[in-house]
Amino acid sequence: MMSREKIRLFVDAPLGEGQSVDLTRDQAHYLFAVMRLGKGARVALFNGHAGEWTAEITEAGKRGGRLMCLGQSAAQLDPPDLWLVFAPIKKARTDFIVEKAAELGAARILPVQTDFTNAERIRRDRLQAHAIEAAEQCGGTFVPPVEDLRKLDRLLDDWSTERQIMFADETLAESSSGAAPLFAEDGPQAGRGAPWAIFIGPEGGYSQAERARLRAMPQSHPVRLGPRILRADTAAVAALTLWQSTLGDW
Amino acid sequence: MMSREKIRLFVDAPLGEGQSVDLTRDQAHYLFAVMRLGKGARVALFNGHAGEWTAEITEAGKRGGRLMCLGQSAAQLDPPDLWLVFAPIKKARTDFIVEKAAELGAARILPVQTDFTNAERIRRDRLQAHAIEAAEQCGGTFVPPVEDLRKLDRLLDDWSTERQIMFADETLAESSSGAAPLFAEDGPQAGRGAPWAIFIGPEGGYSQAERARLRAMPQSHPVRLGPRILRADTAAVAALTLWQSTLGDW
Repeated sequence: MMSREKIRLFVDAPLGEGQSVDLTRDQAHYLFAVMRLGKGARVALFNGHAGEWTAEITEAGKRGGRLMCLGQSAAQLDPPDLWLVFAPIKKARTDFIVEKAAELGAARILPVQTDFTNAERIRRDRLQAHAIEAAEQCGGTFVPPVEDLRKLDRLLDDWSTERQIMFADETLAESSSGAAPLFAEDGPQAGRGAPWAIFIGPEGGYSQAERARLRAMPQSHPVRLGPRILRADTAAVAALTLWQSTLGDW
Repeated sequence: MMSREKIRLFVDAPLGEGQSVDLTRDQAHYLFAVMRLGKGARVALFNGHAGEWTAEITEAGKRGGRLMCLGQSAAQLDPPDLWLVFAPIKKARTDFIVEKAAELGAARILPVQTDFTNAERIRRDRLQAHAIEAAEQCGGTFVPPVEDLRKLDRLLDDWSTERQIMFADETLAESSSGAAPLFAEDGPQAGRGAPWAIFIGPEGGYSQAERARLRAMPQSHPVRLGPRILRADTAAVAALTLWQSTLGDW
């Protein structure tokens, strides 16, 4: 393997030895104007499924450029089959949840509308860009797709019987006295190797109907994230961490 | 206990039945101008050590006001004796680390200068305000003090022999193949009940000298936060979560 370059770019193109890759206008601006690289300089490329490649700049222009792949510098690292389902909150905290999900190894990010969610729509492309930037910054080779906003009820209507649900139930935090286990029942070991999803509610929590529906699903495993109330973005990072360290690839 | 009010204020004053509490100008503005409360309305107060109290507004003015404590609405919840030691990074991410440390139950927040830290100074008062706001928003009754910036070497010169160190060692993430245990050795159980500190390095990592010094300390327990490289703010939240769920009060 080649040594790893510090500047990393996600490209929507095939990667392989001798493969040439065209840059977008934004990428050319970043490499040539911001980072002041020129012909012959090396950067790392990844496309989400072919690992990381060292590439050399062969053409540098104002509106574009071209690179040639020299060799692979890191193997592809896919995350476990873990979805993050969350209700969008304020802009900065929503961006943050997407960034952290990409860093911590979620495979798919699904924003949902719940009874107490204010967001009518999201900027899917902007959130996707945050996931890409997180992978570029943190040496990732995988980028979780960010889906369009959909209603929680619709998502649950089509839910697979196999996919387990880790469900941060804030009523457990408020009502519980003393330490309880992470999983309220035998859930985690039974679910090892299965596909999973983490559900994070909106700021105001789930509605009673939503909580009842989630609790009644046989795939659902309520968890308690400590005795303190956590903001939704904190709960997302904490839940991803606990899932990865208990059932994932940490 | 009285039922809990949604609007919560941290006050630097004694709390107890019949106790009257003066508001600062900012707090008066928030309650009377922003939230449009008036005489007779109720809010929750906490001072960091006496639990949470329901208080009634008895005087409301443009530049101040007064409340009277009616009864306790939540018991004091102190965090475990856990320090978070971190190197300040970009402003928004430093704010975020302090906010999350307060939410997740750190007892003390210590910003440090390391060999690769750019920050020459921090706005301690602003960071402290973030910790207070996190406690106000999340129902907390404790506010971790944010210390002044100090040099890592000085902090370690005076380090207690009892205080254990959970040390997120990014070189473990880069070098390791496959899953490793959270703690590289028998650390966690041996340290249960002891005072602890979590150390989070700066963006560029610790210097070789710093890492060698930390590793050589008998109190130090290196941990691996998964196979992905994490930003410093993500590593702080992940480490706090793992510590709390393994050794803390979750």
